[in-house]
Amino acid sequence: MIERLIALVPRSADPAAGPGDDCAVINPGHQSPNLLLLKTDVLVASIHYLPDAPPRAVGWKAVARVISDFAAMGGRPEHFLVTLALPATTEIGWVEELYRGMGDALIKFGAVLAGGETSRVPAGSAAVISIAATGSVARENLVLRSTGQPGHALLVTGSLGGSIRGKHLNFTPRLAEAAWLVCHHKPTAMMDLSDGLGIDLARLAAASGCGFLLEQAALPLTPGCTATDAIADGEDFELLFAIAPGRVAELMTDWALAFPELPLSLVGQLVAQGTGHILDGGWDHFA
Amino acid sequence: MIERLIALVPRSADPAAGPGDDCAVINPGHQSPNLLLLKTDVLVASIHYLPDAPPRAVGWKAVARVISDFAAMGGRPEHFLVTLALPATTEIGWVEELYRGMGDALIKFGAVLAGGETSRVPAGSAAVISIAATGSVARENLVLRSTGQPGHALLVTGSLGGSIRGKHLNFTPRLAEAAWLVCHHKPTAMMDLSDGLGIDLARLAAASGCGFLLEQAALPLTPGCTATDAIADGEDFELLFAIAPGRVAELMTDWALAFPELPLSLVGQLVAQGTGHILDGGWDHFA
Repeated sequence: MIERLIALVPRSADPAAGPGDDCAVINPGHQSPNLLLLKTDVLVASIHYLPDAPPRAVGWKAVARVISDFAAMGGRPEHFLVTLALPATTEIGWVEELYRGMGDALIKFGAVLAGGETSRVPAGSAAVISIAATGSVARENLVLRSTGQPGHALLVTGSLGGSIRGKHLNFTPRLAEAAWLVCHHKPTAMMDLSDGLGIDLARLAAASGCGFLLEQAALPLTPGCTATDAIADGEDFELLFAIAPGRVAELMTDWALAFPELPLSLVGQLVAQGTGHILDGGWDHFA
Repeated sequence: MIERLIALVPRSADPAAGPGDDCAVINPGHQSPNLLLLKTDVLVASIHYLPDAPPRAVGWKAVARVISDFAAMGGRPEHFLVTLALPATTEIGWVEELYRGMGDALIKFGAVLAGGETSRVPAGSAAVISIAATGSVARENLVLRSTGQPGHALLVTGSLGGSIRGKHLNFTPRLAEAAWLVCHHKPTAMMDLSDGLGIDLARLAAASGCGFLLEQAALPLTPGCTATDAIADGEDFELLFAIAPGRVAELMTDWALAFPELPLSLVGQLVAQGTGHILDGGWDHFA
């Protein structure tokens, strides 16, 4: 559907990334050492958070989701625009706490608020929190999800599954880890896990023109979660990336020194298109 | 309320424009001849358009409103992000027409779609269309609303009032006119009229630390509208700007040659703060 829609409007003649990547990538001119990253995201009450969720956590989540997308491109967040469409009955204290939570995330990850817009919604309508942001990435650090190669190893940070129990509201986007990766062990492809490994790994592989093999026994499980949960649950906001197989051992050694508290797990590999596994609802079949 | 909220989050240490201007202004570095403009805006069903409005016109309006803000800064639009939060019952044909309308405006004004995000809203909730966009302005062309001076003339393009009868869905943002102005007769302050002359002129004057005098008899009225309508109705999307009084005659002559079909009207002047008129619900009092 998205492809049908974007065919109806003009697009950049020279896109640096396809419409399916974590951020849009704009080339501001050959004299610039950096590329411009753009991202928009939206939280809807009762869809992305429960109306009684702590508003400070909702604000954190709204901003942190977008920061996770900049991390996934190897870039960093810069200027944020906040658009709120709220019921007239929304209490100002709720909005203040929402802003405090957004501020927590902006401060922690070195970004700033540049502007915003507020509107009411009709009585009975859900609140909508839309975040748009700019970021930047040094040309040599840009990582797309479409540039993986057959044979490359697949790794994930952290642990997967069970985010709905709380992590989805207070996760840490892997900005520092992604910045370290692109400098020291640059992935050949990367994305953040927002819709669950099953959906997102299939997307990365398809964008790269590959299939994939997944070692279910190697999945880093959140305590209390099964491999099915790790594949099917969403909102992990961990990094999924590919790297040449000959570089995995050195990466693992360096990673353990750089990030001793965050697991890095080798979970599979990219393979030729049309081969490998198919993940369907958390279940793993051969193609 | 906005000021209370933005005090809760980090902001740029060196803002090139205050939070109340038409766009946020970002300095991308001293080597860049251009400043970056950022803008977000939102349309909510039943608030900004009727649910049975033609979706192609709604799409035009969503993009054109933002283009009008770039015009008001003396800049031009570049990359757009479209965030849709729609009821699950929304027909794909409606969304396609919305995109066609956005495409109409993007093509006409030389901008492109860079990305977007789509979510559903709970059953019974209003559709929310959030647009974020980047633009640019040559440093020497930037016009703020806060830089008017007492004694400067106030002018408006086009005619005012009655937008709700149709213009609010098919207006032409004054991008070409603003670009001509900043090159040939640069205003000392400028904004676009979105909330009505009464509210917006008061904002421009306050941002500039001025009062204002308004010549009601000089207001360019949409046929069928009164001066009260011209002051109180919103969504004119015309330009309101200030210019040194000694430059008005030459501007008028040049304007008539450049834009023979679009009126330009001298409607008043900025005066010292605490003096001049107060507009209250379309009525004009002395301060």
